[in-house]
Amino acid sequence: MIEATTFIRVRYSETDQMGYVYYGNYASYFEVGRVELFRSIGLSYKELEDDGVMMPVINLSCFYHHPARYDDLLKIVTSIPQLADGVRITFNYKIYNQNELLIHEGKTELVFVDKSRNKPCRMPKKLWEKLQNYPYLKSL
Amino acid sequence: MIEATTFIRVRYSETDQMGYVYYGNYASYFEVGRVELFRSIGLSYKELEDDGVMMPVINLSCFYHHPARYDDLLKIVTSIPQLADGVRITFNYKIYNQNELLIHEGKTELVFVDKSRNKPCRMPKKLWEKLQNYPYLKSL
Amino acid sequence: MIEATTFIRVRYSETDQMGYVYYGNYASYFEVGRVELFRSIGLSYKELEDDGVMMPVINLSCFYHHPARYDDLLKIVTSIPQLADGVRITFNYKIYNQNELLIHEGKTELVFVDKSRNKPCRMPKKLWEKLQNYPYLKSL
Amino acid sequence: MIEATTFIRVRYSETDQMGYVYYGNYASYFEVGRVELFRSIGLSYKELEDDGVMMPVINLSCFYHHPARYDDLLKIVTSIPQLADGVRITFNYKIYNQNELLIHEGKTELVFVDKSRNKPCRMPKKLWEKLQNYPYLKSL
Repeated sequence: MIEATTFIRVRYSETDQMGYVYYGNYASYFEVGRVELFRSIGLSYKELEDDGVMMPVINLSCFYHHPARYDDLLKIVTSIPQLADGVRITFNYKIYNQNELLIHEGKTELVFVDKSRNKPCRMPKKLWEKLQNYPYLKSL
Repeated sequence: MIEATTFIRVRYSETDQMGYVYYGNYASYFEVGRVELFRSIGLSYKELEDDGVMMPVINLSCFYHHPARYDDLLKIVTSIPQLADGVRITFNYKIYNQNELLIHEGKTELVFVDKSRNKPCRMPKKLWEKLQNYPYLKSL
Repeated sequence: MIEATTFIRVRYSETDQMGYVYYGNYASYFEVGRVELFRSIGLSYKELEDDGVMMPVINLSCFYHHPARYDDLLKIVTSIPQLADGVRITFNYKIYNQNELLIHEGKTELVFVDKSRNKPCRMPKKLWEKLQNYPYLKSL
Repeated sequence: MIEATTFIRVRYSETDQMGYVYYGNYASYFEVGRVELFRSIGLSYKELEDDGVMMPVINLSCFYHHPARYDDLLKIVTSIPQLADGVRITFNYKIYNQNELLIHEGKTELVFVDKSRNKPCRMPKKLWEKLQNYPYLKSL
């Protein structure tokens, strides 16, 4: 499994009047998690886009175990649990607060889209080659 | 089934550089959908909070069938599919664009929290009484 | 003066833990105000972009007189106070809550950018012609 | 002058379909800047709020010199230029991208509000004492 850890400090803008992080903001935490996972294996998501491939999310599910609060220092653990095929990719997320409490879990599935044709395409070679370095991905 | 329809015009702030509505913004569309469903049956979510009960989301799942784009006029159809018990409540969402294309589907589950004690509580009487007017809810 | 009035219901996602609308969210209310002003004179900002011209903001100033709160129904009055020249355009905003209290005032200046060349350009003819119907604009 | 430097990586969620950081998102960058300035002099804004004082923004002005873009690593330089009095406080912001280009400048003025009474109040003693360590502030 490929796994990467990123830290995010909760911003005031991310809270709502419950005093919690607004429930829609976790999606942007996930996004930071997967971009930093890519960076950790030597890939830049920005470069993938500049090369002409973008990665929209096609489904998302998540569980709010405990609220995150303003100024919390969150630990986001992002992983790619398996490589099902070359046309979609799944990321899992676990978010812990500064007390090591697991507050949130999520999962997203993304596809690859050729920007110029606006059509689904296969995983870019650049990404595929990096993921080959993690052979256990394929055994799942 | 209780169902309510609301329209939302996509704002520029809600797009991302793909030219799509950012995938995290659907959660706030869902929130508008459920608040307007409440309003349509004579309830104000704001009043529920002022009365001391807030409703955090505990899980969310959703499917991105087609992108929403800037200036799209989205139709959000929100429903309460069933009344499982008095401690949690589920909402379903279907989002259509101005071409009547179903672009997004989602589901959220929420609980009731007593603000003063910061503890889960039962559904407020005010809400329970309104929902009793929809008896088929209970047969599911 | 060209003036247009739009209404916005404050979303939960727009509040912060003060129980106020987060101070950064007024910028998106301004954006809705100016897009609806355009629509009111028969123009679509989306079409301007599709035609190849985008309008980034180059400066912003605003005053927070009173907080907006969750579920408030805000009235946004947007105006173009004058037509200085053909390369930039100013919008003024006044925001009132449902009690007709003036809670916020703002001003933005925008320029025109040719998307294909990524360079400043003159105001699109389509817009210029519409604005000519408001001759007092030029006398200011 | 008190000054603090913070770095922020631009998130995908912060871009818009121009491919720029949405103009309303700089306000949240400012917020991060001033919170980190506080932290750098040994203060926690969160604690100030927990102690009963919150700091709403009463005015904001800013200039967009150049766009920030996705994945840019922004340097935010926040300063308190002077101490006018004990009832309001001004912060200045300069934002540079990874090429050391000054892309944005802003200024906000904030007041102190007693949360329990919901009324303006004087600067908390805790903050005032810290700022006394920067005597030149008062000479301006």
